[in-house]
Amino acid sequence: MHADFPRINPLRLLDDLKTLRSFGATGPGVVRLALSPIDIEARRWLAARMADAGLDATIDGVGTVFGRSRKPGPALVIGSHTDTQPTGGWLDGALGVIYGLEIARALDECAATRDFAVDVASWIDEEGTFSGFLGSRSFVGEAVDTSVRNARNQGGLLLADALAQAGLANLPRVTLDRTRQRAYLEPHIEQGGRLEASAKSIGIVTTIVGIREFQLGFTGQRNHAGTTPMSIRRDAGAALVAFIARIDDAFGRLADADTVWTVGRIDLDPGSFSVVPGKALMNLQFRDANPERLHAMERALVELVDAWNTQHAVHAELIACEGAEEPVTMDPELQQRLEEAAEALAPGQWTSMPSGASHDAQVIAPHIPACMLFVPSIGGVSHDFIEDTAEQHIVLGCEVAARAAAGIAEALRR
Amino acid sequence: MHADFPRINPLRLLDDLKTLRSFGATGPGVVRLALSPIDIEARRWLAARMADAGLDATIDGVGTVFGRSRKPGPALVIGSHTDTQPTGGWLDGALGVIYGLEIARALDECAATRDFAVDVASWIDEEGTFSGFLGSRSFVGEAVDTSVRNARNQGGLLLADALAQAGLANLPRVTLDRTRQRAYLEPHIEQGGRLEASAKSIGIVTTIVGIREFQLGFTGQRNHAGTTPMSIRRDAGAALVAFIARIDDAFGRLADADTVWTVGRIDLDPGSFSVVPGKALMNLQFRDANPERLHAMERALVELVDAWNTQHAVHAELIACEGAEEPVTMDPELQQRLEEAAEALAPGQWTSMPSGASHDAQVIAPHIPACMLFVPSIGGVSHDFIEDTAEQHIVLGCEVAARAAAGIAEALRR
Repeated sequence: MHADFPRINPLRLLDDLKTLRSFGATGPGVVRLALSPIDIEARRWLAARMADAGLDATIDGVGTVFGRSRKPGPALVIGSHTDTQPTGGWLDGALGVIYGLEIARALDECAATRDFAVDVASWIDEEGTFSGFLGSRSFVGEAVDTSVRNARNQGGLLLADALAQAGLANLPRVTLDRTRQRAYLEPHIEQGGRLEASAKSIGIVTTIVGIREFQLGFTGQRNHAGTTPMSIRRDAGAALVAFIARIDDAFGRLADADTVWTVGRIDLDPGSFSVVPGKALMNLQFRDANPERLHAMERALVELVDAWNTQHAVHAELIACEGAEEPVTMDPELQQRLEEAAEALAPGQWTSMPSGASHDAQVIAPHIPACMLFVPSIGGVSHDFIEDTAEQHIVLGCEVAARAAAGIAEALRR
Repeated sequence: MHADFPRINPLRLLDDLKTLRSFGATGPGVVRLALSPIDIEARRWLAARMADAGLDATIDGVGTVFGRSRKPGPALVIGSHTDTQPTGGWLDGALGVIYGLEIARALDECAATRDFAVDVASWIDEEGTFSGFLGSRSFVGEAVDTSVRNARNQGGLLLADALAQAGLANLPRVTLDRTRQRAYLEPHIEQGGRLEASAKSIGIVTTIVGIREFQLGFTGQRNHAGTTPMSIRRDAGAALVAFIARIDDAFGRLADADTVWTVGRIDLDPGSFSVVPGKALMNLQFRDANPERLHAMERALVELVDAWNTQHAVHAELIACEGAEEPVTMDPELQQRLEEAAEALAPGQWTSMPSGASHDAQVIAPHIPACMLFVPSIGGVSHDFIEDTAEQHIVLGCEVAARAAAGIAEALRR
């Protein structure tokens, strides 16, 4: 590698990742729910590591760990999250945060990049233990006070009380300074199997897909499963099953290879052997990078329900759920910096791809140019204790991210 | 009506039904779970009404109320059950028990039938609060001591303790005396909508259908619903839905108009919006009067599972459940007595039909000739507080049953 480029320290990178894993380690995985005592411990350790790297490190009033570069001039923010799901993998968002830390150190150690300002962030509660994307939302200036006052975790603990217990309640909150913080890079594990399936080592995100969530309710007539002939049944469960086939057919005609839809839950009422279900309910989610396709799928769903209700004695109802997310496009120039770095260090081994999962980058992208880099997930597994990424991919991903960061930071100074 | 035939007293019949309803009345329905305090109260009232009717009435060691005729010669047993489901209708089995009481009185009041012996029974726990068909099983000599020792209700109360609390634990149990008790008649509400749909007033049961119950489990791969392309998913829920279509197709080809099958419950794991289900489970029950068709359906199911597993990456597993019941044919001669009575009192208003529901008659039929008579259920509803039958149908049903009982009792004496 040319001396003009920053060189990361693979052992230091892996050491920090493994130390962070030790906070909440559970078998091969990690349980480090946002603002839990072990998460606070991990945040204090992370802030100390940021300070060791020469950053001005703070834990802010919502729990985000932010390491601000002391260097003047425009800054690149590199971040992700170190909180986990209830059955979390050891890398997930932690990978991107420690990449940021290592890249800040590597740029500082390289003569050509020493002056470049890199801020590093671990946004609080990306996973939504209390309120999803709390840290990044607070950072970009969204109003989060209502969340802070009212959000509770599954145990019923108020977010405000969790912050008070951690001694964070009255601390200032880090906010975006657009005059200084000009770009955002979020490295993350892929959380899917596309890179592995195509034998690629690096994914460069084009778009974070949009999401729609609906419940579909069916109301028929609860009846005795022995005494009610098939011909006079109004079986809500059978209606639900038949409706899924219609969804598959309609969505299949609208979809491209990246469109996904999922029936994640089905409840039949009353749910016994001997009773024809009188009510049935399902969760339907669909995701796509193209906002027009999302709208077309939504329209198709409405039309399917309308058509169904003119034809069937079981009534179908479409219930829109909260949490619709619009697709978010990654900045084309930043994608190009990632592509250049990937092609230099892993020629032919990278690919552009949508992100099927949500990330803090989608919160930040509307405010400053943002981009994401993926490394492969073994077996496509995430949000599971066995989530993992090959060490060579962890190291290569950080090398590519560091090279891209240097390129981005340099471009910001022009 | 000819004076040689017994005449029931409609007001007395309805009065007794309404008094029985008052034990556990809940809105229009009844909650009178087997051996609950209110059920025991109802049993003591019923035994007293039997004694008033000149029967030797006892509550036996498992809780069955048995009114034995003091008349010599062969006896017809008329019975059903007065315990209810957790959300019970007011008639259900109570109808048949009070019919029996009224018929015993009516035959005694008629010169032509005064000598005929009619025993009346309210078998304990038909509904399976502790152990289904306990009373009829004990009556025909099945070993019920294991049930008595081990069975518990949903609250965890042991059947043995419930019997002890009711003061019944050490009482003798009524058992079938084949030399005397030669036939069994069980009147019951239809619990379905066939009589109503065909505008008939009386159903004469040909067969009590057999039942098969299975769980079908599907094991795929739990995955992130955003990052896992449709093409590489192993969605256990989608597999289950597709499999139901195969069942409908295969069973549809084997079925006749009376065959029924029901998917009463579906569980997807983990059951959220954002996770492709890794496991799925469903309850499947099917019923038919023809044992060969039941076997054919069972074979078809096994073949569907085998074929599926050679074709799909999601593994299907067929899990047989307890509670298979074979079809039970009602005695042809007794059916004929019912037909003659129905044709005499309700010409053209009766029909032969299978019973899709289970009844004590299926326990007794292998031991002595047995038959059943149905009256229409309004809206086909049962096991629900709103279950009901038109008063004219209640009265007509008892008139037909009484006339048939006279015919049966007379034939027994020949």
